[in-house]
Amino acid sequence: MERTCRNGTLRLSDAGKQVTLIGWVSRRRNLGALVFVDLRDRSGIVQIVFDENLSPQVKEVRSEYILQVTGTVQERGQHNPKLATGEIEVHAESVKIINSAETPPITIADDTDTLEDTRLKYRYLDLRRPVLQNNMILRHKICMIARNTLDAEGFVEVETPILARSTPEGARDYLVPSRIYNGKFWALPQSPQIYKQLLMIGGLERYFQIARCFRDEDLRADRQPEFTQIDIEMSFVDEEDVWHIVEKLMQDIFRGVKGIELEDQFVRIPWAECMKKYGTDKPDLRFGNEISDITDLFENTEFQVFKAVRENGGEIDALKFEHAAALYSRKKLDQLQDFIKHGFKAKALAYLKMEKGEISGSIAKALSEGEKEALKERLCMQDDDLVLIVADKAKIAEAALGALRVRLGRELNLIPENVYKFLWVTDFPMFEWSEDENRWVAQHHPFTAPKTEDVDKLFSDPAHVSSRAYDLVLNGYELLSGSIRIHDQELQAKVFESIGLTMEQAKARFGFFLDAFRYGTPPHGGVGIGLERLTMVLAGTENIRDVVAFPTTNSSMDLMSESPNVVDKAQLDILGIEIKDEVKKA
Amino acid sequence: MERTCRNGTLRLSDAGKQVTLIGWVSRRRNLGALVFVDLRDRSGIVQIVFDENLSPQVKEVRSEYILQVTGTVQERGQHNPKLATGEIEVHAESVKIINSAETPPITIADDTDTLEDTRLKYRYLDLRRPVLQNNMILRHKICMIARNTLDAEGFVEVETPILARSTPEGARDYLVPSRIYNGKFWALPQSPQIYKQLLMIGGLERYFQIARCFRDEDLRADRQPEFTQIDIEMSFVDEEDVWHIVEKLMQDIFRGVKGIELEDQFVRIPWAECMKKYGTDKPDLRFGNEISDITDLFENTEFQVFKAVRENGGEIDALKFEHAAALYSRKKLDQLQDFIKHGFKAKALAYLKMEKGEISGSIAKALSEGEKEALKERLCMQDDDLVLIVADKAKIAEAALGALRVRLGRELNLIPENVYKFLWVTDFPMFEWSEDENRWVAQHHPFTAPKTEDVDKLFSDPAHVSSRAYDLVLNGYELLSGSIRIHDQELQAKVFESIGLTMEQAKARFGFFLDAFRYGTPPHGGVGIGLERLTMVLAGTENIRDVVAFPTTNSSMDLMSESPNVVDKAQLDILGIEIKDEVKKA
Repeated sequence: MERTCRNGTLRLSDAGKQVTLIGWVSRRRNLGALVFVDLRDRSGIVQIVFDENLSPQVKEVRSEYILQVTGTVQERGQHNPKLATGEIEVHAESVKIINSAETPPITIADDTDTLEDTRLKYRYLDLRRPVLQNNMILRHKICMIARNTLDAEGFVEVETPILARSTPEGARDYLVPSRIYNGKFWALPQSPQIYKQLLMIGGLERYFQIARCFRDEDLRADRQPEFTQIDIEMSFVDEEDVWHIVEKLMQDIFRGVKGIELEDQFVRIPWAECMKKYGTDKPDLRFGNEISDITDLFENTEFQVFKAVRENGGEIDALKFEHAAALYSRKKLDQLQDFIKHGFKAKALAYLKMEKGEISGSIAKALSEGEKEALKERLCMQDDDLVLIVADKAKIAEAALGALRVRLGRELNLIPENVYKFLWVTDFPMFEWSEDENRWVAQHHPFTAPKTEDVDKLFSDPAHVSSRAYDLVLNGYELLSGSIRIHDQELQAKVFESIGLTMEQAKARFGFFLDAFRYGTPPHGGVGIGLERLTMVLAGTENIRDVVAFPTTNSSMDLMSESPNVVDKAQLDILGIEIKDEVKKA
Repeated sequence: MERTCRNGTLRLSDAGKQVTLIGWVSRRRNLGALVFVDLRDRSGIVQIVFDENLSPQVKEVRSEYILQVTGTVQERGQHNPKLATGEIEVHAESVKIINSAETPPITIADDTDTLEDTRLKYRYLDLRRPVLQNNMILRHKICMIARNTLDAEGFVEVETPILARSTPEGARDYLVPSRIYNGKFWALPQSPQIYKQLLMIGGLERYFQIARCFRDEDLRADRQPEFTQIDIEMSFVDEEDVWHIVEKLMQDIFRGVKGIELEDQFVRIPWAECMKKYGTDKPDLRFGNEISDITDLFENTEFQVFKAVRENGGEIDALKFEHAAALYSRKKLDQLQDFIKHGFKAKALAYLKMEKGEISGSIAKALSEGEKEALKERLCMQDDDLVLIVADKAKIAEAALGALRVRLGRELNLIPENVYKFLWVTDFPMFEWSEDENRWVAQHHPFTAPKTEDVDKLFSDPAHVSSRAYDLVLNGYELLSGSIRIHDQELQAKVFESIGLTMEQAKARFGFFLDAFRYGTPPHGGVGIGLERLTMVLAGTENIRDVVAFPTTNSSMDLMSESPNVVDKAQLDILGIEIKDEVKKA
């Protein structure tokens, strides 16, 4: 179909040109004998002026009709600075109505507050909104850059199966019944982890895949049942090699889509230090306000609360905010205390304020002059500073202050926009204790290598085994997880044992994978980068549905196609399965 | 890990350099105090020479051990022309054993005839064979080129859901039970067809996706339960626009991976003509030997067989092969007759041979001199020509001769290698009659637009409605299918009706999709290119498992991970399904 250029690309320099455009009617206004139409295509919007005598059919045209217009570009009487094409308009000479439209159930021109459920039901109309189209284009660009960078670095993209084997560890699998082998099932992969390690054993050396992953979890706002991972694995590497590739990738992506030059090497901080300083393994480094451990200042304290915490092996931690004392009333501080009591099981929140060189606040009277002086010095307290203090078990105190750090950072506008702070968190613990299962579980996954120097503590002291796992954090979000993997069969078997898998269980679940280690496995490691998360950060949205073409609700329902849905009994019969009676009755 | 270059890249010009290499031991040979090792990495193989006094541990090394070697590149005494690195060898100064290996169950160095089942079970070892690695790299290259070409042409890659709605039409769906909505199911998509059309309705204008597709079919040798499609859709286009993009794509791919310049525009031939000339809609154009309809030569024949066929509205078709008369004995020709009797329900195969200007053969005596002369002239018969004739219903005669054309083309070595002949087959019939279902079914799929001039025959004469569907054929293989789609709600409803779907059924299955047509749907069309097929042609293999990293057997079983497999009852319970009693008992 004839079309000489894209609507959104026309500029004043095009004035005088004859053009043929195609697009959807975004708005139509009649003004005497003139009809003004905003015509939208993927590139943007341009104003068309029709003479109703010349094109009488245009008076019938409504929103979302599709028109093909031939006309001449002319400078506008009044420029519209809100529109990229705002300096010009197109004076129509002829028009053809390509298709008509009923009144759409959502308005595309205004970003009005249509209910999200309505927008999901009519997703094909919601996708006409420029902001969503631009997010799709952004996501595409990120993938193009990632692929070209990885290709240039010698990586080969390999597609791994979606119909895979169920290896229950971590989240729940989606299952697929087999028609040929009734009673047997595939699982949709939670990640290509085992396949990519097999590709390293297969000698591919450098693999990547922009891979679909599936987790049947109870969804949170930032999750979808299926999601995409930029999945990378490399042989003959240590941590530095992996980090270098990821840094290169991020530099290329941020340069390509934002024109931003990132630093050569990202900050690195071991997990234990990260938890102490920020109370989280996903700290937002766009602002400071680190947690200070002030336990040592109260060695001989007579303040009973601090004394008791010290005697029970707890910790006293403080967080200082400048120019904040006057902004936090007693009532607000009570709300903060409620927040950490309910969210983090902290017993209490103490606070101090500095006013005219004097310390006041909830515990000011309980502290000695010496303690107050020591505090002033340690925290460099100035007038109008607010200091929040939690004395509790170390984990609780750090987590509570970590959360307060983020909350006050937002409330006090300490977080600059359009700043991107990356951070490698390293040396994660190998295991964490699962209260539910009453056993140690792998913190990352059971293929992660322990630090060599900690291998002999696998059974004697699992709590203090560090792993070769690492996360990349961006502005407080976990962007990726990765690790150097185990490449030794015996060590892999030991790690399975240490998380309570017997050799029989390990063989039943991962037998083929353990077997593969016997024939010359290279040292290897990699990462899985959350594509939706990365796109969300770059698009500046906190709603994952803004970066997914056809998203589901939080309960995994696609409102547009109404799936999942019922199927014919005949379809189930050939799969050898049936719906349980109690489900049918319900 | 230290590694200065890749094994397969070393050349005579590197002589004198000190290098550090890593790789798998492909072979080891001891020769007095010297040990020769072929060290393999993804780039290739290089010969390393060890002095056993300097590196005594090398005598212990076996196949598939991983070594890190530092040494000096030197010219070989005798060059090995079979190896890219055959002019040099590396004299080792030091070696480190990175990992050991048990004796592998398949030999990687020789392409010996290991049973395919054993190779599938140890796929991670089979993948170490250079031929498979190169196929994976080829597949990756094809995708890289496709993405870069489509990106440059303004296409946006969009990921569409894998957890989709079941829309039973065509092959069987794989189903996924829902945990949250017990009794409901998703289907894995047979293609992104509906989603990509919704993206056009959503204003994306140019979409592509290298998309995973799933069909639960009884597999043939060239099928896998999951496969990949380069999926393309465009708005505001007709056939020419789509073909132009596909031609550009193929030109870029063939230039990029083969260094071959394809023709500017591919040959086009309407379906009906194609069937008449080649007896198939997937003709191999690397050789001629077109079918000739010679029915008209026998208008007044007295040969009863031909006469009867003519009177029943049948057709007499002939196929000529030069220099073939002497090569086809009576016995061989009987075999050809059996072949078309069993495979194509043809009643008989007649043949004629030309020897010293005289026609002989099975029906020579039954033909008049005039008919023989007319045949000579029509078919330009020369000495030693073989002519095969089938007189039957037109469909049967064409199909039988089409198959013989390919068979004799191969037997007579008429098909040149390294030649790539593309062909657009156009104007497919809209419907075909399904004997099984006793109704007309869509030949392509029910979203394909009928030719405008045939719309009024949808109900009155469905057999003669042509569609705007097209295939691209390469060397006898169907590389892609595509069509211009319906973009009008009423016409879409009519087409559903014409294949026997009531409005209620159509709404139940495709309601949301029909709804979407109401709000300004652009004219659109596209294609789905079979990535495995394209890679197979470029890799020169006829086994789909050679271009898939982790393939299944013909019965959809992954012998490596043994999937599908049984799962815990608890996993089924939370999905609200159970295995049918008769399956459990079996």
